[in-house]
Amino acid sequence: MAVQHRVRDLSLAPAGRHQIRLAEHEMPGLMALRERYTASQPLAGARIAGSIHMTVQTAVLIETLVALGAEVRWASCNIFSTDDAAAAAVVVGPSEQGGTPEDPRGVPVFAWKGETLEEYWECTDQIFRWDGVDGPNMILDDGGDATLLVHKGVEFEAAGAVPSAGEDDSEEYRVILETLRRSVAEDGQRFTRMAPGIKGVTEETTTGVHRLYEMQRAGTLLFPAMNVNDAVTKSKFDNTYGCRHSLVDGLNRATDVLIGGKTAVVCGYGDVGKGSAESLRGQGARVLVTEVDPICALQAAMDGYQVVRLEDVLDQAHIVITTTGCKDVITAEHLQGLRDKAIVGNIGHFDNEIDMAGLARVPGVQRTEIKPQVHEWTFPDGHSIIILSEGRLLNLGNATGHPSFVMSNSFSDQTIAQIELFTKPDEYPTGVHLLPKHLDEEVARLHLDALGAKLTELTKSQAEYLGVDVAGPYKPDHYKY
Amino acid sequence: MAVQHRVRDLSLAPAGRHQIRLAEHEMPGLMALRERYTASQPLAGARIAGSIHMTVQTAVLIETLVALGAEVRWASCNIFSTDDAAAAAVVVGPSEQGGTPEDPRGVPVFAWKGETLEEYWECTDQIFRWDGVDGPNMILDDGGDATLLVHKGVEFEAAGAVPSAGEDDSEEYRVILETLRRSVAEDGQRFTRMAPGIKGVTEETTTGVHRLYEMQRAGTLLFPAMNVNDAVTKSKFDNTYGCRHSLVDGLNRATDVLIGGKTAVVCGYGDVGKGSAESLRGQGARVLVTEVDPICALQAAMDGYQVVRLEDVLDQAHIVITTTGCKDVITAEHLQGLRDKAIVGNIGHFDNEIDMAGLARVPGVQRTEIKPQVHEWTFPDGHSIIILSEGRLLNLGNATGHPSFVMSNSFSDQTIAQIELFTKPDEYPTGVHLLPKHLDEEVARLHLDALGAKLTELTKSQAEYLGVDVAGPYKPDHYKY
Ligand SMILES: NC(=O)c1ccc[n+]([C@@H]2O[C@H](COP(=O)([O-])OP(=O)(O)OC[C@H]3O[C@@H](n4cnc5c(N)ncnc54)[C@H](O)[C@@H]3O)[C@@H](O)[C@H]2O)c1
Ligand SMILES: NC(=O)c1ccc[n+]([C@@H]2O[C@H](COP(=O)([O-])OP(=O)(O)OC[C@H]3O[C@@H](n4cnc5c(N)ncnc54)[C@H](O)[C@@H]3O)[C@@H](O)[C@H]2O)c1
Repeated sequence: MAVQHRVRDLSLAPAGRHQIRLAEHEMPGLMALRERYTASQPLAGARIAGSIHMTVQTAVLIETLVALGAEVRWASCNIFSTDDAAAAAVVVGPSEQGGTPEDPRGVPVFAWKGETLEEYWECTDQIFRWDGVDGPNMILDDGGDATLLVHKGVEFEAAGAVPSAGEDDSEEYRVILETLRRSVAEDGQRFTRMAPGIKGVTEETTTGVHRLYEMQRAGTLLFPAMNVNDAVTKSKFDNTYGCRHSLVDGLNRATDVLIGGKTAVVCGYGDVGKGSAESLRGQGARVLVTEVDPICALQAAMDGYQVVRLEDVLDQAHIVITTTGCKDVITAEHLQGLRDKAIVGNIGHFDNEIDMAGLARVPGVQRTEIKPQVHEWTFPDGHSIIILSEGRLLNLGNATGHPSFVMSNSFSDQTIAQIELFTKPDEYPTGVHLLPKHLDEEVARLHLDALGAKLTELTKSQAEYLGVDVAGPYKPDHYKY
Repeated sequence: MAVQHRVRDLSLAPAGRHQIRLAEHEMPGLMALRERYTASQPLAGARIAGSIHMTVQTAVLIETLVALGAEVRWASCNIFSTDDAAAAAVVVGPSEQGGTPEDPRGVPVFAWKGETLEEYWECTDQIFRWDGVDGPNMILDDGGDATLLVHKGVEFEAAGAVPSAGEDDSEEYRVILETLRRSVAEDGQRFTRMAPGIKGVTEETTTGVHRLYEMQRAGTLLFPAMNVNDAVTKSKFDNTYGCRHSLVDGLNRATDVLIGGKTAVVCGYGDVGKGSAESLRGQGARVLVTEVDPICALQAAMDGYQVVRLEDVLDQAHIVITTTGCKDVITAEHLQGLRDKAIVGNIGHFDNEIDMAGLARVPGVQRTEIKPQVHEWTFPDGHSIIILSEGRLLNLGNATGHPSFVMSNSFSDQTIAQIELFTKPDEYPTGVHLLPKHLDEEVARLHLDALGAKLTELTKSQAEYLGVDVAGPYKPDHYKY
């Protein structure tokens, strides 16, 4: 049977396969999990609906899940973040399976770089359409869009109708409502039948986790959820070291502007902000930080960054990067006040960190495409600013996102979280759970050899003195790393 | 009535007072708490037995507690860490009170630099001797020695006798037993009467907190305890940024050896280890790290440090610093294998991180005092190593410990923790508690102005979007900063 898919061009598969092969070498955690679990097939019977940026690294994750026994359908969680070659390679499948662009034998993928919002939500809808069954029994999510679709679907099916969008609703929410309207028209019980079969969701990022805790508080969460983001080997690695790598990479690929000597403002000094500031400082920029949390603000100060309010430094900033997971952090007013040719980018999850809609409404403003995902916005007075990825996450829109090694940590956490939720439903009731610390430590352990790092082993009497087991876990749960 | 005391020399008081005055300027948190609370006197009625390094910064803490209404008796928590001038100034008291070295009007202090172990435990015993009452009703502790004395006192009084030291017991434990033997001989119910009156202890450091959790697990903890160490504004600031400052300072004052270009090994990459490694790297050293926890090991690798086993790099290391809170991290065998004139120091809490007893037992080894707290140990083959502060924490033994600004955070946490435990006994039952996050954020907030840091304020709609209050707290409890 043909592999369902919607990607840019299957003939890109061989190029994608080369990238995947090199990424496998840089993802020792995932490869170790394949080795450990291929025989026992812990994910046999799992039908995973996956929604994560469809990158080369995600291809290695997908093929790991398949190697562990899962069936998978995949969409990207952002309209710009797909690597078209990787997507093609996953559909065609690894060479052992003998698939070709003409006769693909891999995994169904619905993703390409540069989707419209309508296409994006159609693709998300596709990962919930499984032949002969009501839908997936697991979700693997990044930002919570897949989880949102199921929850809204159930809600509107129960209400008997999908509401119309309100005045204040975003463009994107309109599209979500449209997508669900079509679904309900076609089958008014589709998500209602599907939801009880879903054993759980594993969520990748801060923003998605935030939505999950909100649903938990509101009592509307429909199934167990694993907060993968707050595994130490995820948030303290991917968010920080990943962005340290990919922020400057995105800026360079997009603009080729020298960063050294420039003044850069980083909005937010959380995990992503810390890596972003270090990234820019490493290039010789003078880095200023904005924060709302006094603890993070004091950390920024102690790390040697000036802590400012954005409105006070508009005329100094050559580069402004928002990393907050908040909305309207860079307003249309801020954008207009920036100096000529200032570069503005977002490395948070959603595009509402920068008020793009407000910018478009500025009277007389003109938008010029320099190249895809790089736009100059010129104001009536003649000065202009450069916006990256139309305000969406620039490390994925303008570059290739986080590199393999850091994603090997995050995706090992994901894989282990999928195994936990799928195989131990009794231990994880409906609610949001953290990955147990011994699994977190295990993921770190899988990545030391590749870096030549040699771990010291506690003696028995040292371990007793510290009150821990020689094999760990080594820290109390409140420990902050 | 004369102020009880045992310090080096009261005539040092004016010099200490100058230092205290400058420190007050660098401790905006404590000074803000004085301003906020002097009128309401929340600590009126508190009798605090304090055991923290008797430094200039501690002097500001002590006088803050007094300004808030407390009565205080103080000892140092380490034989080398007292600043004799600061101790004298605290006994004499601030100038407003008109005290003089001849007629001191300040606070009872029992501490001087270079105590013997016997003297150290006598001083600790002194903070529990209050005229006319059974003892203190609060403890402020650093490392848990004061807390230990009460718990062991109660235990041995109940048993009716103090046991003799065993073969394997440390020199220090023998002294503790001796101290308690004298106490029991004098009054067999002294600690038994005192303990029920103690409303709680606030504990400063990792090692002391560790002891508290052990007592909690064992069910032997006698009163509520506040884990001040794990306040973010403590462990992520004092342990890290404090040691970043004071490690290099201690090395310089002790040895005047150029750090740049040398190879330094940092054992442990926790909060103290991270600051220590950064401190040495900042001086141009090549820094190697040892770790037992794979997560911290991977952090060290991602921060660009080679992760090694100590035994593999003995011949490369010019400087070895242990930061683990563990014991026997640098063994006598390690010490003998080090290159000629290698410098060895401990910045953890207790002296057992370096096996000094084992070193002294090496046949033919010779100890030469270069100056106080700096000793050369020469092996029979002629090569020698330099040991700082006889294996005790070198930043306090060889320098003046953490600087005021970072201690203003820790000690604001301490002061607030004292107020919490003393004024809200119903909210904190016997057990170990963390400082509530809003108080942690408050302490950070008190330190921003002095650095010229300007905090951004969330709009109401941003706060709603994030699901937080405009005034905080801003992060979930599991957040790691
Ligand atoms: N681009 C990527 O590859 C990538 C990777 C990981 C996470 N993310 C996303 O990045 C965002 C941040 O994630 P994080 O883990 O750093 O979260 P975080 O909570 O650790 O950090 C966000 C910080 O922004 C601050 N903040 C909030 N509103 C602000 C405002 N209006 N002005 C200034 N500062 C403000 C918060 O106090 C916080 O310290 C999330 O949306 C997350 O999903 C993106
Ligand atoms: N000198 C100072 O001014 C000062 C200040 C704060 C804390 N401290 C003390 O420093 C010590 C460390 O505190 P922390 O907050 O960094 O604790 P931490 O738990 O954050 O860090 C200690 C690290 O050492 C590692 N470790 C344990 N045993 C080891 C071994 N045998 N070899 C290599 N690594 C090992 C642990 O895995 C951990 O990561 C404690 O004793 C604490 O009380 C001293």
